[in-house]
Amino acid sequence: METWRAISTIRAVRAFADRPLDEAHVERIIRAGRRAPSSKNRQRWEFVVCRERAHLVELSKVGDFAGHVAAAAAAVAVITPDADNRSAREWTMLDAGQAAQNMLLTAWDLEIGGVHAAVYDEPLARRLLGYPAGYRCDLILSVGYPADPTVLTAPLGTDGRRPLDELVHWERW
Amino acid sequence: METWRAISTIRAVRAFADRPLDEAHVERIIRAGRRAPSSKNRQRWEFVVCRERAHLVELSKVGDFAGHVAAAAAAVAVITPDADNRSAREWTMLDAGQAAQNMLLTAWDLEIGGVHAAVYDEPLARRLLGYPAGYRCDLILSVGYPADPTVLTAPLGTDGRRPLDELVHWERW
Repeated sequence: METWRAISTIRAVRAFADRPLDEAHVERIIRAGRRAPSSKNRQRWEFVVCRERAHLVELSKVGDFAGHVAAAAAAVAVITPDADNRSAREWTMLDAGQAAQNMLLTAWDLEIGGVHAAVYDEPLARRLLGYPAGYRCDLILSVGYPADPTVLTAPLGTDGRRPLDELVHWERW
Repeated sequence: METWRAISTIRAVRAFADRPLDEAHVERIIRAGRRAPSSKNRQRWEFVVCRERAHLVELSKVGDFAGHVAAAAAAVAVITPDADNRSAREWTMLDAGQAAQNMLLTAWDLEIGGVHAAVYDEPLARRLLGYPAGYRCDLILSVGYPADPTVLTAPLGTDGRRPLDELVHWERW
């Protein structure tokens, strides 16, 4: 699909078809995360790809709004180095956002939907995913073929975004 | 251009042609930022678009590696609410990363190159951009038609990324 079409039509998908993802699609999604730009090209990210149903069901308990993970075809947990330094953490998260957007756009291009889950219970995420001390998991992406494929082509209607005029300033605020 | 082509071929462009951007292209880039997903759809971002040469030259002094801003056709300063709460700031930065990636991919799709500049001298950025207390600017994107248009189609070669095997874990770390 054309880039602008992907960027302008992508929406959050929280209900998934009971169908595994093609292996090649999973790999492409991960490659998109890997290809994202990062601060000083540090690539401070690791991805844990989960597809076992029982594991996904457990993972869906890491956050108050993570229920969609239980029925996803796959979850991509984004693991980043932790740091006391506030600026380092903020830039790591900015980079994680770039990787996440690359992955969800690549999924959408393959007619795969997805959505974010914020991790609230980090110790549970750590136990389920097994990442070592010094790392943390803030974000899990659910991905899967949409339960309702018409979302892929449905018009956006009001897209739930602030008006452009409100958030753009020309030359100076 | 196809989404996967944009995602897999985009690279940082730091040298720009001395040619203004089409107005419609500028608007599309901003719209792409606006369309990005955000935590609880909070859209905690404002964009200041700068195109006056003298202003861009001043802006290029906000960071040690921001020199490219001076010769950009435009700079998009990403302004976000500040917060004492560390988690709120981290998620705001993750969202800013999603908006930045949407903007740079949309630019690339229009054969416009771009690159990030981290703001080191935040008081200077504040003075030049005029945003109010309670907000901050961490990131400025330079955009412009590449000085060397062959970068748009050049093969990536080694792409400077960690091997996939090193950063992907299957089911558990």
